[in-house]
Amino acid sequence: MNLARIANDSMAELCRKHPERFPAFAAALCLTDVEGSVAEARRAVKDLGARGVLIYTNVAGEPLDQKKFEPIFACMAELDLPIWLHPVGTAAMTDYPAEKKSRYEMWWCFHWPYETSVAMVRLVFFGLLDRYPKLKIITHHLGGMIPYYDGRVGNGLKVLGQRTSDEDYSQILPSLKRPHMDYLHDIYGDTAMFGGGVHATRCGLEFFGADHVVYATDTPLGPIAPTIETVKKLGLAPADERKLFCGNAEKLLNMKF
Amino acid sequence: MNLARIANDSMAELCRKHPERFPAFAAALCLTDVEGSVAEARRAVKDLGARGVLIYTNVAGEPLDQKKFEPIFACMAELDLPIWLHPVGTAAMTDYPAEKKSRYEMWWCFHWPYETSVAMVRLVFFGLLDRYPKLKIITHHLGGMIPYYDGRVGNGLKVLGQRTSDEDYSQILPSLKRPHMDYLHDIYGDTAMFGGGVHATRCGLEFFGADHVVYATDTPLGPIAPTIETVKKLGLAPADERKLFCGNAEKLLNMKF
Repeated sequence: MNLARIANDSMAELCRKHPERFPAFAAALCLTDVEGSVAEARRAVKDLGARGVLIYTNVAGEPLDQKKFEPIFACMAELDLPIWLHPVGTAAMTDYPAEKKSRYEMWWCFHWPYETSVAMVRLVFFGLLDRYPKLKIITHHLGGMIPYYDGRVGNGLKVLGQRTSDEDYSQILPSLKRPHMDYLHDIYGDTAMFGGGVHATRCGLEFFGADHVVYATDTPLGPIAPTIETVKKLGLAPADERKLFCGNAEKLLNMKF
Repeated sequence: MNLARIANDSMAELCRKHPERFPAFAAALCLTDVEGSVAEARRAVKDLGARGVLIYTNVAGEPLDQKKFEPIFACMAELDLPIWLHPVGTAAMTDYPAEKKSRYEMWWCFHWPYETSVAMVRLVFFGLLDRYPKLKIITHHLGGMIPYYDGRVGNGLKVLGQRTSDEDYSQILPSLKRPHMDYLHDIYGDTAMFGGGVHATRCGLEFFGADHVVYATDTPLGPIAPTIETVKKLGLAPADERKLFCGNAEKLLNMKF
């Protein structure tokens, strides 16, 4: 948590020095210390001007959908500021039982969006978005696999439990106030698609809608110009294009750009 | 392999009895016996009327991109008939280091398309499609994550090796005759999207093109009517729509419907 505090202090300093380039930042946390993370989130927002926090799709290998992590979600719902949900896997998780690690950088390429998808669905099944209906979660890489596989996660998981005999999942969907897909549509996705084709960003946009997609690039790793190009090629009405580039961010961060 | 032979004999019998409903079948194999699989593929095609084979994305936990499995690809290239590539994972592969299995049926929902994607890319990196340029591979669920994440697999893997220090990947891309994305575009995807939105099928179609998408439903698990509806809602020119519903299959299977 000390490292997170140092990082947040440094980000705040950067924003103070270059406000025209860095209007705000998302605070780093260290969720192995939940209580400390809640305190740091409050400090970063109230004292340093952070406009949200970034958390990872797992905490030291554990899933987020556990009661012990709930205070950080409660805190961000109360602060009315977003959580950026970023994947975190490494080559250590293998793709094949016969291999010791994920080879050929498949962990980066595909497992990251995979773990984003799993985390999103499990937070929904956990009932988190019923308990904190105004919680704002922004997912990288345009919502993981959810937009492309809305049929599998939607229709396919309507029969949740029928593929499982060693755990009883039959009460999960009935325990939710709304159909499980509704919550996934309420999450936000960003446009950090690494310069992929317009077809992909359009797919995510049509899933989330123009009010729930925010511009992002993955810079310095992902390309900026092709991402701007892609958003422009969507052929949106000017008001919707503005939402993607800044309007939705203004609402989420409660700032004016 | 004996079980595969029995299955193929039974499928052939079904096709003989109901040719108007089942014009042909894809043969089952058992790739733990590669030599036997090659013999069975030839027998199924030549004696039983199979028009291709189905293989899985791993063989008893091992990846397909190994020399020992190459004879089956060589055989299907020579027979000029397609390979259906189906995912095969179970809950046994966990999503989190802290858990013993994949919970909430995430293995079915998302890991299947994940493993399809990994298998596709690894077969390309293996140089398989340089050695067998006419090999026809049909991937389920519209090409796994490749169409939605063409930016990650395209731009993102152009720097293959830069995220890895314990293996040297620097010679993989230069060893291929063409840019790695070309091969992925040459693969086929099917429309078995479990009744997902039109945006998703359009995303896959725009990636593969109308010559490389074939109609499929996942029946009896996946829905038929919504899949037909989705293809019709793509608003394709009649000639392209015909390609998806039967024209591409006629070419791939060398049959007339």
